[in-house]
Amino acid sequence: MKKRVYSAMRPTGELHIGHYFGAIQNWVRLQNEYECFFAVADWHALTTSYENPENIKSMRRQMILNWLSVGMDPDKCTIFTQSHNLYTAELYLLLGMISPVSWLERCPTYKEMIQALSGRDIANYGFLGYPVLMTADIIMYRTNYVPVGADQIPHIEMAREIVRRFANLYGESIFTEPEAMLTEVPKLSGLDGRKMSKSYNNSIMLSEDFASVEKKLKTMITDPQRKRRTDPGNPDVCPVFEYHKVFSTEQERDYIVKGCRSASIGCIECKSILIRHMEEFLTPIHEKRKKFEAEIKDVDEFLAPYQKRANDEAAGVMEKVRRAVKI
Amino acid sequence: MKKRVYSAMRPTGELHIGHYFGAIQNWVRLQNEYECFFAVADWHALTTSYENPENIKSMRRQMILNWLSVGMDPDKCTIFTQSHNLYTAELYLLLGMISPVSWLERCPTYKEMIQALSGRDIANYGFLGYPVLMTADIIMYRTNYVPVGADQIPHIEMAREIVRRFANLYGESIFTEPEAMLTEVPKLSGLDGRKMSKSYNNSIMLSEDFASVEKKLKTMITDPQRKRRTDPGNPDVCPVFEYHKVFSTEQERDYIVKGCRSASIGCIECKSILIRHMEEFLTPIHEKRKKFEAEIKDVDEFLAPYQKRANDEAAGVMEKVRRAVKI
Repeated sequence: MKKRVYSAMRPTGELHIGHYFGAIQNWVRLQNEYECFFAVADWHALTTSYENPENIKSMRRQMILNWLSVGMDPDKCTIFTQSHNLYTAELYLLLGMISPVSWLERCPTYKEMIQALSGRDIANYGFLGYPVLMTADIIMYRTNYVPVGADQIPHIEMAREIVRRFANLYGESIFTEPEAMLTEVPKLSGLDGRKMSKSYNNSIMLSEDFASVEKKLKTMITDPQRKRRTDPGNPDVCPVFEYHKVFSTEQERDYIVKGCRSASIGCIECKSILIRHMEEFLTPIHEKRKKFEAEIKDVDEFLAPYQKRANDEAAGVMEKVRRAVKI
Repeated sequence: MKKRVYSAMRPTGELHIGHYFGAIQNWVRLQNEYECFFAVADWHALTTSYENPENIKSMRRQMILNWLSVGMDPDKCTIFTQSHNLYTAELYLLLGMISPVSWLERCPTYKEMIQALSGRDIANYGFLGYPVLMTADIIMYRTNYVPVGADQIPHIEMAREIVRRFANLYGESIFTEPEAMLTEVPKLSGLDGRKMSKSYNNSIMLSEDFASVEKKLKTMITDPQRKRRTDPGNPDVCPVFEYHKVFSTEQERDYIVKGCRSASIGCIECKSILIRHMEEFLTPIHEKRKKFEAEIKDVDEFLAPYQKRANDEAAGVMEKVRRAVKI
């Protein structure tokens, strides 16, 4: 039997290429090797955005369209919406009964976020219980591996502790202890070298019109020391070269490094190689996107069979859970 | 339109007459005047009993049989099981997103219980969030009144605060602010004068065989100063007289007070009046109990139409809630 993978993403609307290279590219690979469950974590989005949920529902549509257009295939993996599976809320409630408040307060992300977002009032019960909800999400599918970044390791550790506590209390091995799956992924910074983020206006969106992308790349900053075409440059400090690491071949990179350091090529030529690759990368995504956008009128209707797959799985697990807690 | 009442009881299994006079007698009255929702709070039972849930499910059956045998009528009120309405878990999760942890930590019952049950490990996330779950229970049915004891007033106050916060954040008046309904109820102590509790072995159970009840009443302590039949007694300190306050007529009480103080009647005669009343009280309950016990093979099946009534109501409310939080 194939091992299981679970992962989720908050519906932040349009995704940028940083999301793709940082996570989704890996998911697309995983769907061929594992039985995968990928969720739109709309409840999680409320933990920090409850005051202004804008329109999580329409952002969900955008995200699903993005997922599909980069190759996530619901015939290979189960794509679903977190909030459309009420069994998850039930499991969250039941796991909460056995999850010490002290574990949650100790969680490094809790204290950090409270401090980082000190201007916002997020010290709510739901935010404190974020790792319990995340545990319910993960263990519901008896997940073996969770592809996460290193910052999420404490949450996976807590999920494992909760699974052990459940087994100790109720003598049932219903759940599987999930493991973090750390994968080397290319880190793609924003156009200005900072973290890529829509709010910094330094992103390339997956569905962005190519003319707009081309313009952004053409005006992208390069090595600030290379003021004139005749100055030699240093690829190590050039944000454009970071992109070449992801998009270009080794041969091309060699050519660029030599050319840049010797000033035998200019930034315009260097960028033109990147622009070509970007077009090759984005064009099929845009084509697929157009197709799905036309095809999928109602995202709930489209997701229905996959949502059902997730919910049926959860229904079976919850029957066992209720029996175990004797409710 | 009738105003709505919500109340709930943890499935503690067999109920004693203290439960009846302290709460259920009032519920039976309320079902005629209000649109009532009465729930078996099995999730709440887990907040403190998660380590040893024994068998909440079978205790639920006992409780339902007790409810029915004292006159709760599902044609007049909606009787249902808390855990069989997953919308409640969903609402609990969503309300948790807007409920400050500080409100919960401040809740007097939280600190008290943590201290009172210091031997047990109950400082869990679910226990901390008990008032959030209780709020979800109550407001789901747009309850106007919650018949509670004075100790529960802080919880009702918190429910009102959460309703206001929800309306402020999402600009929707989906919910009603519930009010505590404080009703004068007769306090019936245990046979030994302490609080009536199954664990003190000082209770009369609603379904207890009458021969056993009679024996308990016959050996029940009276005024300890009245050692001999010829000693005058003091009804004010006699636990039996407390029962006369609930079960006997004013005329009978006058007769007893005079007879006891003057030693013109003895404890045996005094108790015989109580025993007769107790038999009159318990016999119809036992008969109904026998009938329901035979009739109701599967309590879930029996409750199904009433559960559906509650769940349908909740489904409608949650559709509005989801729209309000834009999920």
